[in-house]
Amino acid sequence: MPAAGSEPPIADGTTLRVEVLSVVFQIRVPQVRVAPPTAPDSGYGSDADGPSLCVLLTRTADGVWTLPGGGVGAEETLSASARRLVADSLDVREIAHLEQLSVFSDPHRVPIVRTIASTYMGLVPSDAAATPPEAAGWFAVDSLPPLAFDHTEIVDAARHRLAAKLSYTNIAFALAPARFPMSALSEIYCAALGYPVDTTNLLRILSRRAVVVATGTVGKTGRSGGRPPALYAFAEKELRVTDEFATLRPPM
Amino acid sequence: MPAAGSEPPIADGTTLRVEVLSVVFQIRVPQVRVAPPTAPDSGYGSDADGPSLCVLLTRTADGVWTLPGGGVGAEETLSASARRLVADSLDVREIAHLEQLSVFSDPHRVPIVRTIASTYMGLVPSDAAATPPEAAGWFAVDSLPPLAFDHTEIVDAARHRLAAKLSYTNIAFALAPARFPMSALSEIYCAALGYPVDTTNLLRILSRRAVVVATGTVGKTGRSGGRPPALYAFAEKELRVTDEFATLRPPM
Repeated sequence: MPAAGSEPPIADGTTLRVEVLSVVFQIRVPQVRVAPPTAPDSGYGSDADGPSLCVLLTRTADGVWTLPGGGVGAEETLSASARRLVADSLDVREIAHLEQLSVFSDPHRVPIVRTIASTYMGLVPSDAAATPPEAAGWFAVDSLPPLAFDHTEIVDAARHRLAAKLSYTNIAFALAPARFPMSALSEIYCAALGYPVDTTNLLRILSRRAVVVATGTVGKTGRSGGRPPALYAFAEKELRVTDEFATLRPPM
Repeated sequence: MPAAGSEPPIADGTTLRVEVLSVVFQIRVPQVRVAPPTAPDSGYGSDADGPSLCVLLTRTADGVWTLPGGGVGAEETLSASARRLVADSLDVREIAHLEQLSVFSDPHRVPIVRTIASTYMGLVPSDAAATPPEAAGWFAVDSLPPLAFDHTEIVDAARHRLAAKLSYTNIAFALAPARFPMSALSEIYCAALGYPVDTTNLLRILSRRAVVVATGTVGKTGRSGGRPPALYAFAEKELRVTDEFATLRPPM
């Protein structure tokens, strides 16, 4: 609130080209695998038979793969632009969680015209259809094609953010289906983190923190037979920090 | 990396005015208290006798208080601009931690020329001199003057980020002196969180997670007499998540 009667001067800004770029992740069987089948296995996340952490890429007319993005509308916030631009590429609006990553602002990150990139991470549940149009595709993060400019670095920043948030928030709600057996959630964590996660331990910590709850229903019996698995669900569909120091919680 | 021989087209960006604004916090006795002494106590953080979470503000020629900020230099990243602009206001370079907050991009957040704000949170240790020049001052966050535009909202976002990170990272290293008795660290947490923190519990959790370590030295005896207190220090001076689910740590 400026003092009544006089508008304060606007801070001395700089006019810059601004683009919005989104790293959209889904745990899925990738459409495109760049690494040949004889390449050394680069980790559990890229196991050719299991689901992988995949990122949505679009291809320019020149055949270069880029993150989906573009400019900001006159009446849009950057978040609204990010959602619109992804919806343009993905032809679905099933982003369950979208958050700002860093602004990438190296003066020479793109040639000719200095352009800063305001970047976002979007998460799509693994059971969403999410079929991209022809000039786009889902790529396993462990076998990306060469990307334009610093887009590989932006994907890496998003992977890092996702892995960190899996460890202290309920962010996996945005990658999981509405109901799931714990073995499926464990596969999702494994694909996103890039290393195996013990299903029993995962259930223990996520239950204790009330991140996941039993739904009282069961799913289909797996290929290996046995009892039908209990189905779980995330207690909340909004991001929250689940693992704060108990002693630092506000007094009731 | 673009395909050899052809530069990919630059994503379709939008030219916008960009400003960098920083919320710089220090736990200190504020220079300026806006609320009159008879105002109801707004929380532990604003106890007139103890240290408070304070934010650095600068005053325009018109007398309006704003966050320190300005434009981006041609060869600067946004982070470098934030550091330079704060150093201009604060006349010290003792920011122990600086991180990006959100970009504020409401189309009408400032009048006349659309301006997006790339915002930062900076932390200054409580024992740093950090004396601002005349047109700047440290204000307790619980009794801020009216600020320009959406700057109050930006301060709130930074407070929220700081409180969250205190609960799952070692971020307090950037607010604390190099060595401290645990009672002093407890005061810092209390001021930043706005509610009391039990010193014994704080020591227990921060020791168990190896966030703070005993230095083997003792400080001065307090006013109330007794044994000189043991001095502690943060084990690391870089931000890390300290409270991740153990079961989600990568295999060794």
